[in-house]
Amino acid sequence: MKLASLKGGRDGRLVVVSNDVAWFTDASQIAPTLQTALDDWDRCEPLLRGLADSLEHGAAPRERFHEHEAASPLPRAYQWADGSAYVNHVQLVRKARGAEMPETFWTDPLMYQGGSDSFLAPRDPIPLADPAFGCDLEGEVAVITGDVHMGASREEALTAIRLVMLCNDVSLRNLIPGELAKGFGFFQSKPASAFSPVAVTPDALPGWADGKLHGKLEVELNGQVLGEADAGVDMTFDFGTLIAHAAKTRALAAGTIIGSGTVSNRGNDEGPGKPVSEGGVGYSCLAEVRTVETLVHGAPRTEFLNFGDCVRIEMKDARRHTIFGAIEQEVVPYTRESR
Amino acid sequence: MKLASLKGGRDGRLVVVSNDVAWFTDASQIAPTLQTALDDWDRCEPLLRGLADSLEHGAAPRERFHEHEAASPLPRAYQWADGSAYVNHVQLVRKARGAEMPETFWTDPLMYQGGSDSFLAPRDPIPLADPAFGCDLEGEVAVITGDVHMGASREEALTAIRLVMLCNDVSLRNLIPGELAKGFGFFQSKPASAFSPVAVTPDALPGWADGKLHGKLEVELNGQVLGEADAGVDMTFDFGTLIAHAAKTRALAAGTIIGSGTVSNRGNDEGPGKPVSEGGVGYSCLAEVRTVETLVHGAPRTEFLNFGDCVRIEMKDARRHTIFGAIEQEVVPYTRESR
Repeated sequence: MKLASLKGGRDGRLVVVSNDVAWFTDASQIAPTLQTALDDWDRCEPLLRGLADSLEHGAAPRERFHEHEAASPLPRAYQWADGSAYVNHVQLVRKARGAEMPETFWTDPLMYQGGSDSFLAPRDPIPLADPAFGCDLEGEVAVITGDVHMGASREEALTAIRLVMLCNDVSLRNLIPGELAKGFGFFQSKPASAFSPVAVTPDALPGWADGKLHGKLEVELNGQVLGEADAGVDMTFDFGTLIAHAAKTRALAAGTIIGSGTVSNRGNDEGPGKPVSEGGVGYSCLAEVRTVETLVHGAPRTEFLNFGDCVRIEMKDARRHTIFGAIEQEVVPYTRESR
Repeated sequence: MKLASLKGGRDGRLVVVSNDVAWFTDASQIAPTLQTALDDWDRCEPLLRGLADSLEHGAAPRERFHEHEAASPLPRAYQWADGSAYVNHVQLVRKARGAEMPETFWTDPLMYQGGSDSFLAPRDPIPLADPAFGCDLEGEVAVITGDVHMGASREEALTAIRLVMLCNDVSLRNLIPGELAKGFGFFQSKPASAFSPVAVTPDALPGWADGKLHGKLEVELNGQVLGEADAGVDMTFDFGTLIAHAAKTRALAAGTIIGSGTVSNRGNDEGPGKPVSEGGVGYSCLAEVRTVETLVHGAPRTEFLNFGDCVRIEMKDARRHTIFGAIEQEVVPYTRESR
């Protein structure tokens, strides 16, 4: 089953989307918003699945689904916690600045609490006040959970996964060192993120296995392929482990979004991966590009995002059909009028 | 005007509370929940104020307000960002571990993104899985904002403050060093917080001035006074400054909660403050007690919270009447059944 939230109001309007992401049918009779459906999932899920079946069989009224009319599936959420499950990526970044990564990073997930009060829509521009902030994209996979009790095991956590999405976790790289030095984690360095137009139940994802989403995460910058790493490869912590980590000392409420962190695959020689142009799978963020450039050339060569740059994040099935729709965002100057 | 959310459902039921916190009248005809009122504040505020006037004048149906029937004013919120505005407190903690505090801490606010998906009710127990986590209370002041645009000034931010509350920001002190060493800030070390039974508009607070709440924050542990620091004293960053800090790179949506951090006053000699029993104003968290003990005696003498310990946080007006109602929470062993 595929769900989306059409723009409108603070929480959008819940619709069921066809498997080919071409059509939608209104679901507001079942639940007006995705959050209300998640709040009462046991009642809503079978009704939504029935509606999805009707849509596939032409038995429900349908309209064309336009990705630019979609908000993020949860336009605002009660929780957004982002892990760093591709430890390879963390190790590379540390290596580039000459720092050792603690061995515990392979067993104890890194996770930060992100802002969730207003996400960008998947085709909305990224408003940037100052290019000197070092704006970066981060291609990720994310899941939406139901209620998770405190102390849940990995297995219990896996059963709480309701929907899967893609994410562009926008980061302001040049604000990060100062914030992390203060010791309280990210804040200003993590502006609003965006999620894919469509959220998909795990059972409708052929690539879903063992709490991971297998498949190429296609990341483009200005129409050029930046990365096509497999999200199911080198993911040290699966989503069950990430959710259980988040729930260790408190319950998670329905509608919690848990992110994978930037998708990253190792190179064949266990060293840094190569660009797509050199036969590698490339990168899902510019920081990793710059890290590899630093390791290879002694200094970064790629700039962070500037006004007019356009990023695209998508995943396709075996027939090259889109699974989640595409996140496609242009970086624009922020003005008070543009809000 | 005073507002509260009676327990019921995930978001409670909005009621208007009398100025003496003794009575309430149902407000669900205006807005079913506090979040829906905040989402449409321009429409709801005058209606709620009219209802509050009717309640004061005996012209509205009223029922007894029982604090233990109240949830936190926002039982779940889209954002909870907690500052460390009492820099004195930060400096003390650093001093106790022999570390220098950077000078920039006096000009650049510390703030972390907290979990907001499910807060404890003000009279709910604090479920603790393991006393070895080092459970601590933190007495704070917090505000709820309306919509704040990216890049808002301090003055613009001040006009966005809708309501003021007290907060117990529960912390697991012994999990903090390990988490901060990982560099991504707090996560497991910050379980669910609780807020006062009643949220109050700034105009109804005689102690509200210049973005600060003046008045003694009374903190008790097991019926003994732990602290009575003035929340308006030694607050280096007022709420306007904290909100503007949070909004530097992204908009804040209505219903955002911004916290002051642990209230803390300097001693008369600019050194660490004294306990109430020695004529000082005491402390709003046990970590500060232990810090001062370390500075004075070489080692902490006070233990963190254990099962059965009861904390109480309240602020009273000049006539010793409660302003926000009291947060009163007992620490209990967490079991899956207790959730």
